[in-house]
Order: sequence, then C-alpha cells, then structure tokens
Amino acid sequence: MDHPRRIALLGGGQLGRMFIENALRYNVPVDVLDPDPLCPCAQLATRFTQGKFNDRDTVLRFAAEADVVGIEIEHVSTDALEELEQQGKTVIPSPVVLRTIQDKGLQKEFYVRHGIPTAPFALINDAPDMAGHPGLLPAFLKTRTGGYDGKGVMPVDADSRVPGGFTGPFVLEKKIAVDKELAVIAVRGADGTTVAYEPVEMVFDPALNLVDTLLAPARCSEKVAAAARKLAMRVAEAFGAPGIYAVEMFLDRQGELLVNETAPRAHNSGHFTIEACASSQYDQLLRAYMGWPVGDVRMHGAAAMVNLVGDGGTGEPLLAGVRETLGRAGTFIHLYGKHETRNGRKMGHVTVVAPAPEEVDRAVAVVKTHAKVVPAAKPEKQTAK
Amino acid sequence: MDHPRRIALLGGGQLGRMFIENALRYNVPVDVLDPDPLCPCAQLATRFTQGKFNDRDTVLRFAAEADVVGIEIEHVSTDALEELEQQGKTVIPSPVVLRTIQDKGLQKEFYVRHGIPTAPFALINDAPDMAGHPGLLPAFLKTRTGGYDGKGVMPVDADSRVPGGFTGPFVLEKKIAVDKELAVIAVRGADGTTVAYEPVEMVFDPALNLVDTLLAPARCSEKVAAAARKLAMRVAEAFGAPGIYAVEMFLDRQGELLVNETAPRAHNSGHFTIEACASSQYDQLLRAYMGWPVGDVRMHGAAAMVNLVGDGGTGEPLLAGVRETLGRAGTFIHLYGKHETRNGRKMGHVTVVAPAPEEVDRAVAVVKTHAKVVPAAKPEKQTAK
Repeated sequence: MDHPRRIALLGGGQLGRMFIENALRYNVPVDVLDPDPLCPCAQLATRFTQGKFNDRDTVLRFAAEADVVGIEIEHVSTDALEELEQQGKTVIPSPVVLRTIQDKGLQKEFYVRHGIPTAPFALINDAPDMAGHPGLLPAFLKTRTGGYDGKGVMPVDADSRVPGGFTGPFVLEKKIAVDKELAVIAVRGADGTTVAYEPVEMVFDPALNLVDTLLAPARCSEKVAAAARKLAMRVAEAFGAPGIYAVEMFLDRQGELLVNETAPRAHNSGHFTIEACASSQYDQLLRAYMGWPVGDVRMHGAAAMVNLVGDGGTGEPLLAGVRETLGRAGTFIHLYGKHETRNGRKMGHVTVVAPAPEEVDRAVAVVKTHAKVVPAAKPEKQTAK
Repeated sequence: MDHPRRIALLGGGQLGRMFIENALRYNVPVDVLDPDPLCPCAQLATRFTQGKFNDRDTVLRFAAEADVVGIEIEHVSTDALEELEQQGKTVIPSPVVLRTIQDKGLQKEFYVRHGIPTAPFALINDAPDMAGHPGLLPAFLKTRTGGYDGKGVMPVDADSRVPGGFTGPFVLEKKIAVDKELAVIAVRGADGTTVAYEPVEMVFDPALNLVDTLLAPARCSEKVAAAARKLAMRVAEAFGAPGIYAVEMFLDRQGELLVNETAPRAHNSGHFTIEACASSQYDQLLRAYMGWPVGDVRMHGAAAMVNLVGDGGTGEPLLAGVRETLGRAGTFIHLYGKHETRNGRKMGHVTVVAPAPEEVDRAVAVVKTHAKVVPAAKPEKQTAK
C-alpha cells in the first residue's frame, strides 16, 4: 500500500471477525486483543494477544506497534486510547466521542446540546429520585455506564420497586409510544465526507430482548427514510470524528424520529451491508482507519438479517437447516466461530437479499423455520473451529 | 453445521485465499497444501502443510482427515485424487474430469465427442508433423500437458521453426479470426443443478499474455450472451460432475462461439463475482464442496476487473494509487499477500461495480492510470504480510 498501516483492534468478537474477513482482501494486518483465547478473532488475527481491553497498561503494550487503534466493543480503556492518540496514532472512535457515548447521561446531554431530537429524560442518582420527575413516568431507568444488549435497562412507573443490585447514577427516560425501531449506519470518512446507509427496521424478540430480524430498507415512507438518514448524518457530524456510527432511533406514533443511542463502531444492525450493499460497514471502517475515501452505500436490493441465537441449551454448536436456508436464492449464512452455544447467545446470522421485499419475507419465513443453532447431540469432536 | 465437513485444498495461491475468505463466513475449516510457506493461503488456512501437491503420497497424507478435497491449480496428483475418491471422500473436480482437462488433446476430443464447438485441430507428436496438416495453418501449437498462463503455446505457420525445448505431443489448433475472447463460469451443484454467470469479455495485455482487464457482462448482444451461457452450461453438463467450470471461448468474426479451454476450478475470469454478484464463484465452490444448493448468480450492475501485475522490478510489494482507486464509487482492491513482486506477477486485482457500463469504463481508466504494484523503494520492514 502507499500507506502501509497496522491496525490494533480492542475486542475479538464477531464484529472484529467480520472486520478481519474484509481486511484480508486488502491484505491489511489486524492485531486483536481479547481476554478469551477461543474468541471469534483468535485464529484470524495477524497477531492475537490474550488480555483485558479495559486495562490501560495491557492496551498500551498491545497497541505499541500499531498505526491505527480501533474497537469492537465500547467497554475499553479510554485512558489508554487517549494516550495512544497523543502518541500520534489514529484512534477510531475518537476517545472524546467514546467518553460521551460510554455514559448514557453524557450521551443524552450531547444530543440536547446539538439539537438532536431524543426522548425527554432526567439524570438522577438513585431510584427514589424518580419521584421528583412524575412527568417522565412511565419511563425506562437506565444505568449510565456499563449497560449492554438490554442489560442495565428496566421499565418503571410510579410504583416500581427497583432491585438493590440495580445501582445509579441513572438516566430516567420517558417511555415513548413507539411505532418502529430504526437504525441507520452513518459513515464519516477521514476527509470529513459523511454518508449513510438506508435505515433498517429492527424486530425484537421480546423474550431475549435481542434483535431477532432486521429489515433493510425499513418498511417506512420515503420521507421517513430520508429523514432517518439525515438525522444519522447529523449525529455523525455532531461527533465530528471519523468512523462509523450506528444510530438507533425510535419512530414515534406521531411520525417523529428520536435518537435512542449511538454505537461508534460496527453494529449488528449493519451486518446486512456485507451482502446487500456495495461497501459493507466493515469496508467503511477499514477505509476510515486507513485514511481512504468512503465507500459506496448503495443497496443491491431488499434485504433482511435474521440473528441465529443459541437454542436448546449449552454445548458445541451445530447449525441445523443449512440446506433449507441456502435453498432460497440470495441467502447467506454467517457463523461466528464461537466454541460454545448457549441459550440466547448470538452465534451467527443469515442475510437475505432479493429484488423485492415480498421475496425477502418469504425467505425469512423459511430461515426462521429451519435455521437453528443447537448443541451437538453427541460429545463428538467438532470439526468447525 | 448439520453436515460438518473439513476441506483439504491442493494449492495455496490467490484462488485459495479468496476461497478461504468466503469460507470463513461459514466457519468451515480449510486445510491447505503448498510447497511455498509464504504462499497467500499460508496464514489463513486452518492448517497449512508445506509440501508438493503433485506428489501422490504427500497429497494422501495431507488429505487423510478431510471430508472434501479440492484444487486451485490443475497440476496436482490425479492418482492421489482417485485414491481419495475411492476412500469415499468428495473430490471436486472429479479426477475423471481433471484427467481430461490436464491433457489439452483429450480435452479437445472431449468437446468433439460431446458436440461442443471448438476450433479445428489435430493431435501430433512432433513439430515436423505440422506439415501433414496444411489446412490448419496458420495455427497455435500447444503442448498437450503442463502449459499454464500462456506458457506452452506458440503461434506457427508453414515456415515456423519450433525451438528445441518446446516438446510434444502437441495440439495443432487452427488460428481463428477472433472478434472477442469470452469466458463463462458455469456451476454444477451437488444435486446436478447447473447455472451460469453472465459472460465476461477478456482484454489481454499483449506483452504479458495475461488478462489485463475483464468486462462483465461482455459487451456483446443479448443473443450472444445467452448462447455463451448456454454453451458453458452444456460443457458443465457434459463433464457431469459437481464443481465450477471456467469455460473460455472465442467469438469468431462470423458470430460463432468456439470453446477454447475449460478450467475446472475458480478462475481469474470469475474474480468479479465477489463484489458484482449475489454469490461469488468461491461461494459456489464452497456450496458444491459441502453438498449445499447452488447460489444466486445474478449481477448487481455492470462490472470490470483490472489485474494488478507487478511492475518496475522485484522487491517487497507496494500498491501505489490506493486513494485514487478507492475514490471512485464501487471500487474494491484485492491484494493477494504475496511477499515479493516481480514484473508480470499477479499481485492483486481491482473490481469496479457501477449501475452503467460507461461509469465502469471511467473508473477502469482511473484505476489503470493510478493503481500499480511496484517494489518498495527502501528495504524497510513491510507491515503488510
């Protein structure tokens, strides 16, 4: 390359794995730090280091030779990232952005300060402080830091008893009458160019509080879609630093869009871009890391993504229904290489791309009927590693 | 997977590397055998074995634990493949097919036997035997076995002196007045379903006798395109075994299609399918190996592939012009991870995908102007590995 660069990635999960799958095309070296030596990236990293990505000294040592430092999870040592940035390395996301996003309270205040619509809220220290904000109830009580994948969030009303282990400080956020949950991946290039993919519609599994199916583009009006993309680009421009921003938003019953939260990294809601778009979210991230121009966000057709979560207990993972799934045109399987399946654990996903939404829906029905990650019946040696 | 299978691949070049890049998505283990420990697959294989893929015993040992055996180069031990097939393993391509294709004389006779149009020819043992076939001259004299990438082929007429090292037996093939050189990748699934991608048009660099640029679809009439796809499917059906078949053909000045030769493996002429089609040729090959249904061959737009061949001497490879190349929408770089660039060596390629052929042409012009693989100026440590 005219600018050879070594990338150091904090976190070795599936997002990192899909990032590396794309980076291999360009032959860019990617080192990975993760506490789990069996994590999805362990075998694919140019160099794999076992260690804690939230430990300052570990991160500093790990990234010493890198030109670029990236993350695939927010719970990393921001202190280390700041120091690495001061050393002259490219750090994406910017530690300033990450500090804001790591604290849901700071994040909400950021939206307000930048005129970005978001649900009404108050910052409170303890659950009893809810009483001082009757106008926000019913609401969601969210721990300001450390929440993930629905953890650290609980619905509350005036009579709620908050369990002892659920400790503040909190964001108390008014419950919105939601029509749809949307997400838009916005991309900010190294040169400041900002683009956005089509909005996607998230369909949640109520039992697991995980995205079950994701429809791309969202089944909404052109007007709402354009407004959602514009809003996501405003968020990326407000943060102002290169990288990708997965902006989750609510479309309320009045047709207004409200930003829920932003992840400054590759995101589950952007997996569909691998097969359904010209450049994937992982390709965009690589381009941002390398200082290259932003990629093409155009879609090839209608698409959907179905999460494959563990079902039927713990054990070596086995994917049932491969033949039925791949028997539909434009259907693709991703398995993340996790060594153990557990109920509700994200083990992979299926992407469907087809010319028409109706065709996508028919394929999704087939996938949801047949594709299941279950524990292998016998304790035989697993060939997939 | 419901049918976990371990794949053993003979050959560790760029075709194998792009195959593995796709197989990683499905978490399918791929072992690789190659004599060069620095080959493009060495770092990506689940297990890499250094050894000769044309040595029977080496191949038998290497593939002992595999369920499927594949190739990414034709010059492998067919004896070993036959034995592995008898052991009950899935071997793709079938050794019968490979024996036919390895010998250009048998291959030509195969086409004639199956009514597949091909240029007139004679099988001769020595160069002086050309005199017995004046009606075929001017012609190409091709060594029946061992030729590759234009090696083992020379143009001849009645007065030609054939160099001493150029030894028979030969195919003497009448020189055709060629309008275009086309190629079609046909796919035969494990269940016998046969499909074909759009034909591509190969533009050769006359100096290197390598494909320089490839246009997909070929710039020909719908009628010719349909006939080319049908012809490639006939070839795949005649061979009758699962796998992918890269069928190179001539469109002559009378508008007739003549099969030149077939490669029973992933092929340079199918690289464009990675970004330009729903399922790539590598995805199709994986599906054939695993016994899964064939993938979707539809294209996302017009496309082109530009080979990146080494230029300016020998040394550590450096790709110049990355920013200019990626600055065009829908442009993608592949670098194969070779450790040394040499004049004319295939080091990577660029794919362009755009809604209209004119847009593709403009991007190709930019790529050809800027993207160059050259030796690094200084003997500094290369970060790309």
